[in-house]
Amino acid sequence: MAKYLQLIEKIQQQIDREIWLPGDKLPSLREQVAQSGMSLMTVMHAYQVLESQGWILSRPQSGYFVAPRAEFLSQPASHQKVQLTESVDINDFIFEVLQACRDPGIVPFGSAFPDPELFPQRQLMRSLTAVSHSLKPADALNNLPPGNEALRKTLAQRYALQGIQVSPEEIVITNGAMEALNLSLQAVTKPGDWVVVENPCFYGALQAIERLQLKAVAIASHPQHGIDLDELASTLARLPVKACWMMSNQQNPLGCTLSREKKRDLVALLESYQVTLIEDDVYSELYFGSEKPLPAKAFEKQDTVLHCSSFSKNLVAGFRVGWVAAGKHAQRIQRLQLMSTISTSAPMQLTLANYLGTRSYDSHLRKLRQKLEQRKNLARQSLRRHLPASAKINDSQGGYFLWIELPPEVNSTELYYRALQQKISIAPGKMFSTGEQYANYFRFNAAWEWNEEREAAVATLGGLIKEMLSLTQRWS
Amino acid sequence: MAKYLQLIEKIQQQIDREIWLPGDKLPSLREQVAQSGMSLMTVMHAYQVLESQGWILSRPQSGYFVAPRAEFLSQPASHQKVQLTESVDINDFIFEVLQACRDPGIVPFGSAFPDPELFPQRQLMRSLTAVSHSLKPADALNNLPPGNEALRKTLAQRYALQGIQVSPEEIVITNGAMEALNLSLQAVTKPGDWVVVENPCFYGALQAIERLQLKAVAIASHPQHGIDLDELASTLARLPVKACWMMSNQQNPLGCTLSREKKRDLVALLESYQVTLIEDDVYSELYFGSEKPLPAKAFEKQDTVLHCSSFSKNLVAGFRVGWVAAGKHAQRIQRLQLMSTISTSAPMQLTLANYLGTRSYDSHLRKLRQKLEQRKNLARQSLRRHLPASAKINDSQGGYFLWIELPPEVNSTELYYRALQQKISIAPGKMFSTGEQYANYFRFNAAWEWNEEREAAVATLGGLIKEMLSLTQRWS
Repeated sequence: MAKYLQLIEKIQQQIDREIWLPGDKLPSLREQVAQSGMSLMTVMHAYQVLESQGWILSRPQSGYFVAPRAEFLSQPASHQKVQLTESVDINDFIFEVLQACRDPGIVPFGSAFPDPELFPQRQLMRSLTAVSHSLKPADALNNLPPGNEALRKTLAQRYALQGIQVSPEEIVITNGAMEALNLSLQAVTKPGDWVVVENPCFYGALQAIERLQLKAVAIASHPQHGIDLDELASTLARLPVKACWMMSNQQNPLGCTLSREKKRDLVALLESYQVTLIEDDVYSELYFGSEKPLPAKAFEKQDTVLHCSSFSKNLVAGFRVGWVAAGKHAQRIQRLQLMSTISTSAPMQLTLANYLGTRSYDSHLRKLRQKLEQRKNLARQSLRRHLPASAKINDSQGGYFLWIELPPEVNSTELYYRALQQKISIAPGKMFSTGEQYANYFRFNAAWEWNEEREAAVATLGGLIKEMLSLTQRWS
Repeated sequence: MAKYLQLIEKIQQQIDREIWLPGDKLPSLREQVAQSGMSLMTVMHAYQVLESQGWILSRPQSGYFVAPRAEFLSQPASHQKVQLTESVDINDFIFEVLQACRDPGIVPFGSAFPDPELFPQRQLMRSLTAVSHSLKPADALNNLPPGNEALRKTLAQRYALQGIQVSPEEIVITNGAMEALNLSLQAVTKPGDWVVVENPCFYGALQAIERLQLKAVAIASHPQHGIDLDELASTLARLPVKACWMMSNQQNPLGCTLSREKKRDLVALLESYQVTLIEDDVYSELYFGSEKPLPAKAFEKQDTVLHCSSFSKNLVAGFRVGWVAAGKHAQRIQRLQLMSTISTSAPMQLTLANYLGTRSYDSHLRKLRQKLEQRKNLARQSLRRHLPASAKINDSQGGYFLWIELPPEVNSTELYYRALQQKISIAPGKMFSTGEQYANYFRFNAAWEWNEEREAAVATLGGLIKEMLSLTQRWS
């Protein structure tokens, strides 16, 4: 066996045996050279292969780390037509869950928001102060759709850094990604049209489809590999699908990111059927690897991807500023925005333009990613300590969600209510699907600083699950 | 004839003969006593009757003024079912007009916005600065729907000052009145439902109806007296109407305000058919009389009026903060908002709460009203100087719009294009109706400071109209 393969096998075994846990720093190249007696070239080669296989991650100036561990989760049926008639109850339930997360007395594991303490409060306040001193009466008019010019230029530059050609004219600034996604869906569909979503998916997608009187078909997404392209292809062959709403990076709730190849194939498949892709990419800055993942937008050949994102998940939650890179649909989206909210607030657009002008965004993002990865590792370790061994935790290389599968006999909605009595919230699987496939799953928000209170909350959660398990076992 | 009646007749004649022009200050009570030799009681009585008849206006601490002059405008057919199929073209045209108003090189008589120079820039900047220094990470969460608590309390207090019972819990803060109106319509209708609008009306209403797949029926509104209640009654008897979207104060584009009695009758009529009233009340702070007009909301008996307003037309345009007093619909509207834009920006809500806390809003509004009335008088006088005598100008006791009827042979859309070549914009009647009834009308924004450039622009406009008139006369 070649020397580098021996080293690869050795490290894989060490990770399997949990000598190195996910998030742990591996020996540096030089340390490994000293330990193994192999050449630097051999060690580097082994590390590169391990990285390409997803075992480890490299971080510039920091070294190599064990990648998050994905556990094998069960998969639901590969596709289903979505019955939206029952969704009124689901919506009631979703709002109940979201509302519970706002109570400061409740441990917010069910929250969709990252910990706002992670955001660069002081710099944002400085930008807001600067804007408050320089606001002009004409600013209202000048920041109407498509929105602030400096902001659109900066966004276009950030696309260019990833090799994506988007002109400032194709970008529309919106009231958060939520407005961007809603207007995008509205721009490319008519009532009665078919729309593809993932299963499980962000509940906002199902709500938007319902509101616009569209028909949804949900394609199963694998916890690690994402959407099933074969199922998608057969669905597109069978139904006159108009649009596909999905997340190719850090999918909510799964956390998974499609590979480059899969993104390319996805876009090619959709383009072959002239289906517009509405890409919800709000978590892509929260990657843990060495490079920001490309959006599916990067692979479009025919101006068919509307790429929606925002600053809400990585910089500031309350400003409500997002955007869509809408290509040829930009003008229609501007008009729809003028008809629904007129525009995004001028001072908020100006504040973000000012902040981005200080060039501290990327250094903030680096620190944010590091902290989120640490916190997610701590949360995962805590869950492993307290949840029964039969619970499976889907980890991923980014974001702050853990997607957890419980044994089939544990209903996560019931768990939600039991946990809430103990002042702990979770996001039950029911929120992310209209079917019953995810009744034993839940989403866990791991963005919080780890402390005794949170450790105790996870212990309580683990106790509740074990209690529910023993109850079902006693009665079955 | 009683002495006070003699004085009334005398003053009416003076106004008719244009001895006193609209906006002119009348002799004070004391001066009138000295001039007429009548008692103070008699003079006061005469002035009160003249005010109740709409001839004059009293302003606290300032005296009495000649009321704006309403000229008799023609009326279109009293109702029509709206064909929305043609509205795509109309929307293209509306956006073209709005876009033109944003060009700083164009005289913005077609604009919907008031002159932003009228707003208390310095105080707003001070409030924004204060917020920028005190922003907290938790603010995002704390200002989610229904929105900032202090702001909702202040709004509830302002309703209470008008004798209207609205609790802070019934209020939802929105991204401007536009979002409030859209969410309200969405909350109370299902696709296919019938909705009553006025004719002419704010184009946003027709666009919202179209987007939500509703059916519209337009009831004629009289230029001075507003909606035809008999027509409304017969429409309600004939069609299963679900909601009525209208403006009872300073209607856009007419400018007219319904009398108290008419508002009361309107609400009683709608309630008798269990039709929800969506009241667009964005101009009500811009009244010229001595008292703020009540909204129709004040007359509800069954929690059927959703009262929508904002700060955009009287305090600041670019913040995008509005609200709806939604009664029992408040929770549904919060949910719809969470699904469409999530919330209004937290710093903007906090800034308005801070500004309202300084208690300078009402003194700003007093100055604003005074300026708008002066400017509208100047604009009206200028239009009278330059437009042909056959043009009729509908004036009103508030707001900054003048609704102008041209002779039937002058098409205002053609006038719009001719004026635009001269760098002047107007808002042609076509924007406010889907029918052809208003092809010879246009809306004139009179909020601008009067200067030589604007005087020249009105002269040019008058010249174009006369040219179009002579052309049609030559060829007919």
